[in-house]
Amino acid sequence: MIEIEAALQLIADTARQLAAESLPLSDVAGHVLAADITSDVDSPPFDKAMMDGFGVRSEDFAAGIRQFPVVAQITAGTSFDETVQPGEAVQIMTGAPVPSGIDAVVMVEQTSQAISGGDAVVTMEAARCLPGQNILKRATAMSVGETILPTGRVIRSEDIGVLAEAGAATCPVIRKPTLAVLATGDELVDVSSRPAANQIRNSNGPMLASLARELCSNVADLGIGVDDREQLAALVQRGLSYDVLVLSGGVSAGTRDMVPAVLQELGVEQVFHKVKIKPGKPIWFGTRTGPGTVNSWVFGLPGNPVSSMVCFHVFVAPLLLRLAGCDPQQRQLSAQLARDHSQRPGRTTYWPSRLEWTDDQWLVEPLDWKGSADLKTLAAANCFVVFDGARDTFRTGDAVPVFCMDNG
Amino acid sequence: MIEIEAALQLIADTARQLAAESLPLSDVAGHVLAADITSDVDSPPFDKAMMDGFGVRSEDFAAGIRQFPVVAQITAGTSFDETVQPGEAVQIMTGAPVPSGIDAVVMVEQTSQAISGGDAVVTMEAARCLPGQNILKRATAMSVGETILPTGRVIRSEDIGVLAEAGAATCPVIRKPTLAVLATGDELVDVSSRPAANQIRNSNGPMLASLARELCSNVADLGIGVDDREQLAALVQRGLSYDVLVLSGGVSAGTRDMVPAVLQELGVEQVFHKVKIKPGKPIWFGTRTGPGTVNSWVFGLPGNPVSSMVCFHVFVAPLLLRLAGCDPQQRQLSAQLARDHSQRPGRTTYWPSRLEWTDDQWLVEPLDWKGSADLKTLAAANCFVVFDGARDTFRTGDAVPVFCMDNG
Repeated sequence: MIEIEAALQLIADTARQLAAESLPLSDVAGHVLAADITSDVDSPPFDKAMMDGFGVRSEDFAAGIRQFPVVAQITAGTSFDETVQPGEAVQIMTGAPVPSGIDAVVMVEQTSQAISGGDAVVTMEAARCLPGQNILKRATAMSVGETILPTGRVIRSEDIGVLAEAGAATCPVIRKPTLAVLATGDELVDVSSRPAANQIRNSNGPMLASLARELCSNVADLGIGVDDREQLAALVQRGLSYDVLVLSGGVSAGTRDMVPAVLQELGVEQVFHKVKIKPGKPIWFGTRTGPGTVNSWVFGLPGNPVSSMVCFHVFVAPLLLRLAGCDPQQRQLSAQLARDHSQRPGRTTYWPSRLEWTDDQWLVEPLDWKGSADLKTLAAANCFVVFDGARDTFRTGDAVPVFCMDNG
Repeated sequence: MIEIEAALQLIADTARQLAAESLPLSDVAGHVLAADITSDVDSPPFDKAMMDGFGVRSEDFAAGIRQFPVVAQITAGTSFDETVQPGEAVQIMTGAPVPSGIDAVVMVEQTSQAISGGDAVVTMEAARCLPGQNILKRATAMSVGETILPTGRVIRSEDIGVLAEAGAATCPVIRKPTLAVLATGDELVDVSSRPAANQIRNSNGPMLASLARELCSNVADLGIGVDDREQLAALVQRGLSYDVLVLSGGVSAGTRDMVPAVLQELGVEQVFHKVKIKPGKPIWFGTRTGPGTVNSWVFGLPGNPVSSMVCFHVFVAPLLLRLAGCDPQQRQLSAQLARDHSQRPGRTTYWPSRLEWTDDQWLVEPLDWKGSADLKTLAAANCFVVFDGARDTFRTGDAVPVFCMDNG
């Protein structure tokens, strides 16, 4: 039996970033960039009007001129290739290119317009007109060849705009892992079945699959493997065609727990079995090595629903993040205990709890949890308090580490 | 021009929860429950062994008996229907039903086993054996008919286990909205095209679509509508077949900004135009009413990329959450300014900034942002500081409201 930190290190030691792939811009959010993205354009590509209004030479305004003939009307998507002469103005729309000669745009609200002898004339009512006003200079935001997002960056939806502007119609990103879930146990029936007296529904498979969908590109729920060696071996074989295989059940010391043997038969080597964590002690982890490199990562999680949830968050999620090229963030924060708590000392314990931000601090209340099969209380939890196994008593107001459920 | 709060209220006033639909358990995470979910089973369905070991009568142990004949072997998925007699033991696996007569399970590690005359005999080496030990009583976690998750609850992946256990193979959930994005402007070209001198790529469309995918069930990027009335009307018509239509561009005061007119023609009534927010002032919002109820919500967002991002987060996201049955959370927190900041007083300003948790407080640094077309600096931001329009100077250490980018 090893410590949690040692187990995490052993898992990390087997991990590598998966290969890069090229995805269209509509699909890249949430992926990690596999190469620097550089711009192939200046942005803005021209000196650009930031307001609807009239472009003039600021020195004309400074010289006291207020009435200007309007020599052109420039909208976004059009241009005016001549140089505007002293004493002239152009009408210009937001986003349109500012023509040569013009160095200031006066908002339309600070002007009045008239037609005089068939020609448009604008009168400036603005109090001032400074050089550069309401104009964004070419390449202010980005210039050709500049790196706009670096390798390793997790792409957010907010970044899609800058990628589009830079011309990245497709992006090289790290592939996200694929994952298969297989629940094992003769006592399990599918969620759509009515369990007989000695049966329970398979709750782990659908839950683990749903958790995995938040971090993987493709998740298969392989259903239920009963304790029949041949059928189990066929399902495990199928599961090994995914990057990660998560089994639940069949890892404790029962006589019919044949999962480790089947895995060994199929070339999966054990990395560790049993970790000093509560719940989750019987967790099993192994890998299968292909030509020169690990090509399957396999977890055997305890059949108990809360154990398998805790093990997914603590052990599986960080691996999935590493495979996708992310650095797993520390998901623990410190909070004040809202009530006393006592335990039998031993393993580090993850206790379902409710975390809340109150005024200026995090307050966490360990829930009245009936033990490892109590999924209903778990539904009210949004975190786990991580109780140090060396202590038996924790007091209201103690600072305790809290593990949040959200991924990423 | 109205205040931000007034605009949010006007949007909320038009919102309603969309209809319920029934989805399979694999698809419900992230949806809001449209009805209470009750259990059709007791959990556990029987008194259940929590350890691999030997079941005995604790009163036998209390009476000093340590050696027991093993009368049955019970694994998960099997059962033993006879009552175990005084002086007898059963071997039992984790998850298996505890037979009548037995009231305690001693862990296998605290026993030794032998075969005597062909019959298995177990010797207890445990120091104690208390009534109920290592047994989870029937219905401890949930009982038939009990509500396990209430109407209105946002379903997390962690909840899928309890839903499966309770037999909810499908769940009634509030439908998530569908949304179409249409960028407008003669100056726009698709991301895959090389822009000519007076053109820019459509960065808003792909970005808004990506943001919307985080909150919608189906998002269509309708591409670019040029400033041609007929073509624009056809695209808007198509966009109105979605719950929400988000237009970007074409809402400022330019002469060719024909979007509001086209919308009116198609039966979309204006709710408001212009809000005291920077960036984002020209935002337009309207609805189309079907038989008795609003059936299309339409936003006209400014063409400027940062404005459209801010407007999406501040105005569009809360509507999408309401349509999906969620109560939009307050996404503002308070942080300390990491450097001085000054501005021209006027509208409330959302300034791209970097928020970090340092020791025991949130620290926020307004970024050196070159203005509304500067997407590159925006890529380094993870929040906006909301600067009060009534002030012109903010000092290092001031507490300021911060608007986080993440949805939900």
